[in-house]
Amino acid sequence: MDTSAFAHALIDAGRLFHQRGWVPATGGNFSARLDGERMLITASGCHKGELREADFLVAGFDGRPIDSPRKASYETLLHCQLYRHDPAIGAVLHTHSIANTVLSRRLDRIRLAGYELLKLLPGITTHDAQVDVPVFANDQDIARLSATVDAHMKQHPHTPAYVIAGHGLYAWGADVAQARWRVEALEFMFACELHA
Amino acid sequence: MDTSAFAHALIDAGRLFHQRGWVPATGGNFSARLDGERMLITASGCHKGELREADFLVAGFDGRPIDSPRKASYETLLHCQLYRHDPAIGAVLHTHSIANTVLSRRLDRIRLAGYELLKLLPGITTHDAQVDVPVFANDQDIARLSATVDAHMKQHPHTPAYVIAGHGLYAWGADVAQARWRVEALEFMFACELHA
Amino acid sequence: MDTSAFAHALIDAGRLFHQRGWVPATGGNFSARLDGERMLITASGCHKGELREADFLVAGFDGRPIDSPRKASYETLLHCQLYRHDPAIGAVLHTHSIANTVLSRRLDRIRLAGYELLKLLPGITTHDAQVDVPVFANDQDIARLSATVDAHMKQHPHTPAYVIAGHGLYAWGADVAQARWRVEALEFMFACELHA
Amino acid sequence: MDTSAFAHALIDAGRLFHQRGWVPATGGNFSARLDGERMLITASGCHKGELREADFLVAGFDGRPIDSPRKASYETLLHCQLYRHDPAIGAVLHTHSIANTVLSRRLDRIRLAGYELLKLLPGITTHDAQVDVPVFANDQDIARLSATVDAHMKQHPHTPAYVIAGHGLYAWGADVAQARWRVEALEFMFACELHA
Repeated sequence: MDTSAFAHALIDAGRLFHQRGWVPATGGNFSARLDGERMLITASGCHKGELREADFLVAGFDGRPIDSPRKASYETLLHCQLYRHDPAIGAVLHTHSIANTVLSRRLDRIRLAGYELLKLLPGITTHDAQVDVPVFANDQDIARLSATVDAHMKQHPHTPAYVIAGHGLYAWGADVAQARWRVEALEFMFACELHA
Repeated sequence: MDTSAFAHALIDAGRLFHQRGWVPATGGNFSARLDGERMLITASGCHKGELREADFLVAGFDGRPIDSPRKASYETLLHCQLYRHDPAIGAVLHTHSIANTVLSRRLDRIRLAGYELLKLLPGITTHDAQVDVPVFANDQDIARLSATVDAHMKQHPHTPAYVIAGHGLYAWGADVAQARWRVEALEFMFACELHA
Repeated sequence: MDTSAFAHALIDAGRLFHQRGWVPATGGNFSARLDGERMLITASGCHKGELREADFLVAGFDGRPIDSPRKASYETLLHCQLYRHDPAIGAVLHTHSIANTVLSRRLDRIRLAGYELLKLLPGITTHDAQVDVPVFANDQDIARLSATVDAHMKQHPHTPAYVIAGHGLYAWGADVAQARWRVEALEFMFACELHA
Repeated sequence: MDTSAFAHALIDAGRLFHQRGWVPATGGNFSARLDGERMLITASGCHKGELREADFLVAGFDGRPIDSPRKASYETLLHCQLYRHDPAIGAVLHTHSIANTVLSRRLDRIRLAGYELLKLLPGITTHDAQVDVPVFANDQDIARLSATVDAHMKQHPHTPAYVIAGHGLYAWGADVAQARWRVEALEFMFACELHA
């Protein structure tokens, strides 16, 4: 897959998430791993439901743009943390939904149990499981927030995704399709929790 | 109607259900009866809102693929049970909605009464009726779950549809259009129950 | 405006209402006045979100099809009542929404007060108004239900619209556009009442 | 940017808001500043989700149409107030949503705190902020309502947006894109407040 193909997979995910109301205003950001050192990531300040190829740039896993005048997304370091943490992660999608925002303002972790869609999460093969999606306090110091996430994931290597309180979901997968399916599954279960 | 026409009727149903949020991630599966021994059914692991013809395969009513390298949907035996149970069933649609998921985690059966849309269900000609949609506990052993459903339907031949707890709805009809209309009617009434 | 233009205005209204979830399954029906004696109305049993020109027929205000083999909508007499009651009515739209269904199962009349969108209703020029949308018990005897509606409207000539309990909304206007805008305004206010 | 480009930016915003259900019936109105004395604004009585270029007219900041037989939107003076108040305002968008309608019937001001999306509002750089969106009583005397808004904004120059009770949101930005993003961010936070 070349850079353009990755961009189009992310553009399509953004269009879908926009229809669902999960990327309001300039919220959210998306990336895909290009190789062991670089990712393609959405530029800062664009609408994630109406992305074009020009809205992406290549950055290293230190968060610095490579050969691009555009500024990477404000939250690039959170993407870097995931790619460095696990070489099997091929794509990272960050969304803002009403359900994840309301639940994460109320809870320290979002516990999901008994849902068939849990089987979309890594390592889970039955609905008869219980998963805790951690909620981290929001922090405008992204380097510090990234370190908090990294410490948590080193202690809890099976973390399936996480939410930043009042902000949004970070989910990932081996490729864009799997990351997108996990977003869909998690947002569905979050909406069920909100209605329960 | 040839196989391709059946596939396109199911593709269109999937696109609609996806807009409604009823087939998140790779959830749901769809089938249509081809004759007295075979059905067309969605392959395992594809997104039901973005189906292509290649995402279908032919399987017997024992659940085995016929001349296809693709794996049938994980829940194929539930489709087989319905086609074997009633030769008048021409299509089976399985959806995951927020309403059916939340209600089925809370209730043993979903009682629907007094709705005009009850008239979409088999054998009902007035809103002044009461229907119980049974809720079965979820089970990753699909053969066992299928036997549970079959036993229930032999005892209650007028079962209009059923829900698997925390998982989703199974509905059917003489053809894809009727099955789709029943899904729409049931999901509408479930959403009303959730808001009531 | 010729018959085809009326059909297309109703087809477009149906597509929009379908996106909103207001015409599930084969629910709802639409008509437009052709002249002092005839209307164009949706045929029985079709999906109102996917109408084609062939899904319409011409009927008299006694509800009988004129030169058509197709059966008129089951609820044709409710359309006839409105066209006979007021010659200024040019279009009638009937929708099934979650909000109107839930509210009408709970209330004898839906009282709307203080909404800016009240100004879309006939004769209202300020938000500082109060409107009662009557709720009639559902009845499969449409001639009897039509007589009940007619008696109410003769007593309450300013009735802006009505709802049949557990069934749906009947709204009207001088033309299809105005009837559609009233449906949008009423459904919006019903949804606000449901969330309040 | 010429007049046609402004019209198309507003047409696109309207189409999106319509999909979201934020411009029911003929509700809402949109404008963009053309220069120091004139704006392009939606004409009275059209549907904001289905705008065409012909649905716009040029008006002065006194609200009078310039070289147009069409009537400006009923609420033109509210747009004039904003353009006169702050020369940096380049676009004004007014929407009717279920969330802003329900909240504004209940509250004197809508307090938003701790949301990441607060950063879309003028002068806010952290989620750790608190913003009050004022709610004004609805008034059919738009000149009087406009004077009330103007007096408030002179006292509270950092007002990020406002809501008219039971009616809708007024938001603005340096250009149509920024105004649209603020509408998306505010409506998202209002919906969160409604679900909380």
